[in-house]
Order: sequence, then C-alpha cells, then structure tokens
Amino acid sequence: MKDYKVVFFDAYGVLKNSSGLIPGIEGTFNYLKEHNIDYYILTNDASRGPKSLAQYYIDEGLTSVTHDKIISSGMLATEYLRLKVKHGTVAYLGTGESAHYLQDSGLQTLPISNMDVNDVKHVNALVFLDDEGFDWHHDIPKMVNLLMKRNIPSIVANTDKSYPVSDKEVGIAIGSIANMVEDITGRNFIKFGKPDAQMFIFAYEHCQKAKEVGRESILMVGDTLFTDIMGGNKFGIDTALVLTGNTLPENASDRIKQFGIIPDYVCDSAVID
Amino acid sequence: MKDYKVVFFDAYGVLKNSSGLIPGIEGTFNYLKEHNIDYYILTNDASRGPKSLAQYYIDEGLTSVTHDKIISSGMLATEYLRLKVKHGTVAYLGTGESAHYLQDSGLQTLPISNMDVNDVKHVNALVFLDDEGFDWHHDIPKMVNLLMKRNIPSIVANTDKSYPVSDKEVGIAIGSIANMVEDITGRNFIKFGKPDAQMFIFAYEHCQKAKEVGRESILMVGDTLFTDIMGGNKFGIDTALVLTGNTLPENASDRIKQFGIIPDYVCDSAVID
Amino acid sequence: MKDYKVVFFDAYGVLKNSSGLIPGIEGTFNYLKEHNIDYYILTNDASRGPKSLAQYYIDEGLTSVTHDKIISSGMLATEYLRLKVKHGTVAYLGTGESAHYLQDSGLQTLPISNMDVNDVKHVNALVFLDDEGFDWHHDIPKMVNLLMKRNIPSIVANTDKSYPVSDKEVGIAIGSIANMVEDITGRNFIKFGKPDAQMFIFAYEHCQKAKEVGRESILMVGDTLFTDIMGGNKFGIDTALVLTGNTLPENASDRIKQFGIIPDYVCDSAVID
Amino acid sequence: MKDYKVVFFDAYGVLKNSSGLIPGIEGTFNYLKEHNIDYYILTNDASRGPKSLAQYYIDEGLTSVTHDKIISSGMLATEYLRLKVKHGTVAYLGTGESAHYLQDSGLQTLPISNMDVNDVKHVNALVFLDDEGFDWHHDIPKMVNLLMKRNIPSIVANTDKSYPVSDKEVGIAIGSIANMVEDITGRNFIKFGKPDAQMFIFAYEHCQKAKEVGRESILMVGDTLFTDIMGGNKFGIDTALVLTGNTLPENASDRIKQFGIIPDYVCDSAVID
Repeated sequence: MKDYKVVFFDAYGVLKNSSGLIPGIEGTFNYLKEHNIDYYILTNDASRGPKSLAQYYIDEGLTSVTHDKIISSGMLATEYLRLKVKHGTVAYLGTGESAHYLQDSGLQTLPISNMDVNDVKHVNALVFLDDEGFDWHHDIPKMVNLLMKRNIPSIVANTDKSYPVSDKEVGIAIGSIANMVEDITGRNFIKFGKPDAQMFIFAYEHCQKAKEVGRESILMVGDTLFTDIMGGNKFGIDTALVLTGNTLPENASDRIKQFGIIPDYVCDSAVID
Repeated sequence: MKDYKVVFFDAYGVLKNSSGLIPGIEGTFNYLKEHNIDYYILTNDASRGPKSLAQYYIDEGLTSVTHDKIISSGMLATEYLRLKVKHGTVAYLGTGESAHYLQDSGLQTLPISNMDVNDVKHVNALVFLDDEGFDWHHDIPKMVNLLMKRNIPSIVANTDKSYPVSDKEVGIAIGSIANMVEDITGRNFIKFGKPDAQMFIFAYEHCQKAKEVGRESILMVGDTLFTDIMGGNKFGIDTALVLTGNTLPENASDRIKQFGIIPDYVCDSAVID
Repeated sequence: MKDYKVVFFDAYGVLKNSSGLIPGIEGTFNYLKEHNIDYYILTNDASRGPKSLAQYYIDEGLTSVTHDKIISSGMLATEYLRLKVKHGTVAYLGTGESAHYLQDSGLQTLPISNMDVNDVKHVNALVFLDDEGFDWHHDIPKMVNLLMKRNIPSIVANTDKSYPVSDKEVGIAIGSIANMVEDITGRNFIKFGKPDAQMFIFAYEHCQKAKEVGRESILMVGDTLFTDIMGGNKFGIDTALVLTGNTLPENASDRIKQFGIIPDYVCDSAVID
Repeated sequence: MKDYKVVFFDAYGVLKNSSGLIPGIEGTFNYLKEHNIDYYILTNDASRGPKSLAQYYIDEGLTSVTHDKIISSGMLATEYLRLKVKHGTVAYLGTGESAHYLQDSGLQTLPISNMDVNDVKHVNALVFLDDEGFDWHHDIPKMVNLLMKRNIPSIVANTDKSYPVSDKEVGIAIGSIANMVEDITGRNFIKFGKPDAQMFIFAYEHCQKAKEVGRESILMVGDTLFTDIMGGNKFGIDTALVLTGNTLPENASDRIKQFGIIPDYVCDSAVID
C-alpha cells in the first residue's frame, strides 16, 4: 500500500461484515495515518446519508472515519437531480433516512407509499434508494404503473443486487428491484454505483480537493470482482482483491479466470498489523 | 379460420380483458362449433387449476369451454415434478388455489410463508406459481436464501412479466419475481409458458387425443408478439395477431418490423359475427 | 443405464473429441445392443446431413450408427421451412453440404455469397447453417443489410457458440454469428438446438416410431450443462453429465452449484467396458 | 444553444452522414464562433487518430475543427494502456492507422493477423480498434483462442454495433465483434465509448483546460438515444436529439416513450442558419 497516495476502500466485505468490523482493521487505518496515505470509502449504499454511514465506524472505534471520507452512490443521485430535474415532485422507494439524498435537490419528495397512482402529473422523477420503508407487494406494482403514465427519469441510487444480513443469509437490494421494474416497463434507468465510472470519478474529484493525485497513485481495495475490481480497473487505477467477503479463497483464482476480471493484487484481507 | 382444424387461443387480450369477455366473442365459438373446428385455450396462468379457469368462461355464458379445453403453463410444472422430483417436499410461492398444480405430484407441499429457512434439508424443489398468497418483503428474500442452502430445481410455472388488472394498470406476474431471484442467485430456472415450445407440444399432444391433426392445420390466435406469435411460429403452426390486447393498432406494423416477429395474419379482433 | 429403454447421446465430448472416437466407446454400443436399449445421437450440427454425420461413426468402426440414429438441429430447420415458408427463395450461410437441409423444402436456395443485396425481393427466409462456406468480412454485413430491407423469418440451425477444432483450440460456431446479427438488427431469430425443448420433442417423436416409451425411460448423456443437461431436465428426462468434454472434472461440482443445473448422474465418461 | 458555454456534438448523423457534411452545418459553427461557445466532437471511433478525424472536416471546409476538438473513444484505450499495462505486447484488431492509439503506450504492438496463437506468452493486452485490417474468418477465432490461453485485459475502443456505409446500408462495427468474442469466452471486456460516463468525463476534463465550466453549461447534441442522449443525461448535462441520423422523425416520440430515454430538446437538425 505504501506505493499509493490514496486508497479507495469498499465497505462491506473489506472493512466490516455482518458481525461488525473486520478484526484488526484498525491497524490498517493506523498504517495509513502513519504513512500519510489518504483514503475514502466507496459504497453502493443509499440507505443512509454519509454522516449516518460514518457514525457506524466512529461508534466502532474508528474515529478518523468522518463523513467526508464516505462516497456513496446516493450522492450521485443527489447530483443528478440537482443538474437535471429542475422542478416538481420526486417519488422514491426507501426509508425516510434514505430520503436524505433528495432533500438538497429543492424538489418536493414523495414516499411511494403515499403516492396516489391516479394523481401523478406533478411527479417528474422516480428514485430507487433502499429496499426498506415501503410495502413491496403494494408499492412495487405502483412503480410500474407510475411509469406507464409518466415518461420520467428513473434513478437507481444503488446497483447492488443483494447484501449480507448475517453470516449465511442475504437481503435483496434495491438494485434488484429496480432491474425488475426496468425489465417489466422496457424503460432504461439511470444507475449509479460501482462498477460504473461515474462513481469513481466522483470519488476522484472529491479526493483532488484534499491533495492532487494522479490515477496511478490510487489503489482500490474490494471484495467483489464485478463492482470494485472491474470498476477500478476500467477507471485506470490499481486494484486489490481481498478474500474476506464475496469472493471466497477456495475459488478466487477460478473466478478471476472464468470472468476475466483481473485484480493487480490478491490479498487474504485488508488488515495490516 | 375455416382452413384450420384446430385453433389455439390465448386467453387474455383475445377472449377476455379486464372488463370481462370481449364483446361478440361468443360468435366465434358458435362459428367453430358449426364448422367442426376444435379449439384450446393456451394460457400462461398457474394461479388456478384448469377447472377453475374454465369456470370463468362458463359463468360468462361460454358453456362449451370445459376444463379439458384449458392448457395452462401450470400443467407443465405438474408434469415436471412427476417425472423429475421423486420424493421430499416442494416449496412454492402462490395461493392455496395455485398449489392445485402440486397436489398430483405425490410430494409434500409447503407454502413459502410457512417455510423455516433454517430447516430446509427436506426441500427438494421450488415452484413459482402465483404473485399472490405470500408476503413479498418477507418471503422473496427467503427464496434467495433457500437457494443458497439447497441446490434444487426451481420451476417457474408462468413466464409472463406482468398482467392487466384494469384498463390502465398492470400487476407484476410471478415470472418477473422468478427472473429477479434467478438473477440474484445466478442459478438457471426451469421455465414453462409461451413462447417456449414445450407449452405448444403439450397442447399439440393433448389435441391429438381428440383427433389427429398435422401442424399445418393448427392456427394460434394471440395478442402478444413475444409469446403467442413467436412461440406459434417457431413450433411451425400458423399465427394470427389480434389487436384487442397487448399490441396496439397504432403501432402493430412498426413493432412487427422492429422485432422481426411476423404473424401470418393481423386481425382487429378474434370476433366472428 | 440398464434402467432405461432409450439413451440420447450428445456427440462431441461424449462419443468423440478432436482426436476421434472416445477410446472404449464401442463397449457402450455393444452394451446397448446386448440389453436391447435403443439410442439416438442429438447434435447441434447443421454443417452436414444425417447421412454424412453417420458416416463418420461407420468409418470409425461403429457400424450400427446409421443415419436414422442421428437427430441434428438442422432437421428442425428443414421442418420449419416446410411448414412455414411456402414459396420463394431461402438465402443461407453455410457450405453446399449444409444446404442439404434446405433441399427438401421445395424452395429455391441461394448461398449468401451469391446474393445481390440490391435484388432481394424474392428472398423469403434466411437460414444460418454453418460457419464455413462464405466470406465472413463480406457476407456477414450482407445479412444485416438483407434484414434491413426484408422483414423475413431468420432461422438458426445450430445454437452452439463454439466448437473444438483441436485439443486446445476452438472455432466460432454459426450460433455466435447469428447472435451478433440478431443483436445488431434487433430482430428475433428462430433458433433450433439443445437446450431448446423442440430438439428433444423431435427426437422423442422420432424414437416413438421404433418403440413406444415414456419420458421416464429415457436418459440424456451429455458433457455440457447449458445444453444437454438443462435441456434434458426441462424436457422431463433423466440426465447424466460426463466429464470427457466441456465440463472439467476439477470444477464440475462447483459449476453445478454455481449455475443450478443439476444432472441426475455425474460420470467420468460414457464408456462401458 | 446560446444558453450553453460548451456543446458536445456527436459526429455521424449530426455533423455528417454517408453523403458528406450535413448541408448548412457550417452555419452552426459560425454561430458558435460568434457567440463564443466552445465545442467538442465526441465520437465512438477508433479507426483513425484525432488528427486524421479532424482532417475530414477541414477538407470539407470546416477549418476550425482542429484535432484538439476531437474526443474519440480510442483516446480512452490509450489512457487505459498507459495506466494499467506496464510492459509486454498488445495485440490488436484494426488497421495500421487505428494502431495510432497504441503507439504512445510504450508497448510493443502486434496486429492480430501477425500473431502466432502458439506463441502468446508475451501478449499482455488485447485491443479491439476497428473492423477493417484483418481477416475475419481467420483472425476472430484467433482472439477467442488467445483468451483461452491468456487471461489478459481486453479493451474495446468503440462500443458501437454498426455504422452507416451508405444511405441504405450499414457495416458491422468492432463493438459487435467484441461482444461476440466476450460472449463466447465468458470474459468481461473493458469498453470505452458513449454512453459510458468515462467518455463524457474525458471530454469534460479536456474542455476544462480551455475554460472552466460547470455541467449545467454543457449541451450534448446527438442522433442516437442509446449513446448520445442516455450518456449525456446520466452525466448530468442537457441533451438535444436531432433527427438527421439514427432516430427517424416518424418514430422519435414513440421510441422516446418506449425506451424511457428522454432528451431535453428534440430538433429537426443541428443546423443553424
């Protein structure tokens, strides 16, 4: 790591898992501080705002993880709305906490559960934020019917398909629900999150404010070939795959060969003693 | 129609719509009877058994539509289970009425809402029957976790993505939910329903019992290019597109050209005075 | 095997490979004869007719493999043309030998290399037969332009993506070329070959002529999860995966789990001493 | 247009077509100059270098189109190689002129036609540049076999599927050939070109060097919903669809609704008198 000036970390499977922080990961943060290496956490998570996401690490004892270290895919949805949706109401799927990402847009916000599908003329955008906070059976079909009535931009603030809820079980992420609605309606949604380049450029521009670095001085550390490694590679930064999450030690080399997604490094974990 | 010995009808958009029977459709059934043309209704519907599906037509006055005239995709799921799953329990998504299709299989049946995801060793198959009868938010993730614990055949008894619930609104069909679970898990499900050839061969074998006919004497009448017409064409029977359902009069010819799915006939409706 | 009355074999990777017949496979055919088990060879191969395909086995000493034992995907293309394309010219990609499949259709045949893209009004169908026999650089774009001028049925007589040409190298099969043209044009092609049910039903109807058997008495033996095993399972017959071809012994169990395509048996090879 | 400080133009279908420059387009460039509006041409074209691409416009009388106004997807491939492939040989599909994009990388370049597939240990990357300059029948299978022997990054420098060669005919672009090889091998390629955000960010960074502008001051003008408009929208800039190329006046509004890709403006052409 010491050859790099900035490290981008994935959160889940790298820094934490369903039991809490990865044991020993504080050593890594100490190392970064000692060697004056900057870092950011890039997460496909729009369920909570950066402050709330950072608070988790602070509560767990990683006090250096302040909110400005968090780059979440939800922040790209905020930027999109600011640039492209000038007025009207934005309907959303997600909790009130996830709606944080919409508040700065200057638009009226409308949780999907409160939307009357017969009164949607004022709805000018639809945002998929989180898989919690609405009634799936009732509200997902409402999305489909909204889109049959209104040809409006639909923004997906997290492209992940699933997320771990325990050691052996996963939840269905909002990205999967968005894919289903996209497939049913035939529309093309605007999707934010790794591996998409826009997530990396957002982090890149963010880190330039602290110190100017070239892409050759940035390392992406992640546990998932299809998001962290594929996205990092395409953006032109070096990539390290860790085996504490989605990619299992027993089939890491097979999967790298099968999919042709090639990390620059493969490490057991992101822990530095 | 008089050039054919057997007609296969799609149900929704051809014989009925969200308001009831297509006005005048009884004339078509009279015509078929007069000209001694046999017919079957091929439907991607596993929400109810053939008797229950037939009862709808009888209640509406089409008394000739007996249960042996109904060929539903659910019947293929029944046959699959009989041939390929010899013992154990089959978990299912759907109502109790849809579970009709599992009862003849000799397997124990288990509605997904009653399944304990920590006790699934006896579950040897999973069947997607209907979008009603379970709690989406709670039970769809259970499907994903079942499949992470058990590598078992997963059968989709209706490949439709959506279905009309009123003149202007649709519901999400179980086929879309199955596609989402398939995408999340990476598994390959066994799918039954038009346009798949197996649906047509099932109907074809069925109609041979009444009278022997070649494929050149069968006409498929449907409202949907991607199921009725594509499937009928591939199976080698003639196809007629009607414009009373999914395909709108104003863009029928554009869609035929855009997708290259070419019916032998295009008609306003299936009604014969 | 002795529990079955009929065995369907895949050809490549099961009976033969790039070096010739799988050593010892004649023992299997002796066993079948002794036990009065019927068999058929189901192959996604439209490059040559059944007689020519059978001759290979006869030349190699398997004299019982007569042409009526061969079920090739090309035979389904022949049937489609007979049933659905009544007149005009059928253009094709493939060798003169592959055009065997078009000769019985009663249609004029036109190799793509001889087609003038400015004179295509008489062309009523397009068939993808083989990857040899035409100039890729010149003739594949001609296919695209033909389809822009004529909205005609396009039939793919072999859905395989690649085929082995030696121990370590593969060729690109016509199925891949067809997929590319389909993607460019946005049209939906009519595709024949395993795992599609139509291939299995064709073989099934064929074998009923010799002796009447139920699906529970048929075994499919193949080396490829996505064609032989997936197709056999869906059709409702038992399936055996052999490890002499596409599926390697070292990752067979991982791939079965990854893809959820589950053979009833896994065997080192189809050889019976 | 006068509300914007910078305009991004697509080339084909907007500024030129198969007959040459769009008549009257010089008026647009005069208008831009008068109003001090900067512009760039964003093209999915890696067949020739920026100087050669610019020369076309100069030869046609648009003398202001210098090479620094051209942003081609090939330039992203150059950057990728510089950042991520440190040594060895890069094999490529394309003409010698397209290989321009590889020369600055410091790597050895090897046209695919000269590659011996039995001697590929030194090949560390593969780049798809252009559909000309190699023997399709011979060299495309070589790509597949190279990738079976070497798990190396594969870069696609143009994601377009086809391109017009005359008023009524198209050619097959290298993007389609790359998709076919990707599908056969199961590998995940690194793809550059609109609608991908990386193309837009590259242009954006480029234009900041001339004058600092925010995204709200940039307009993308294009003829293709799936590349120009979808990419521009996602990047957060305004978009104008012109009807002089891929999107036809008679079905523009239907396609916008069908696909849910919504331009901010729809104009007959990019011509300003």
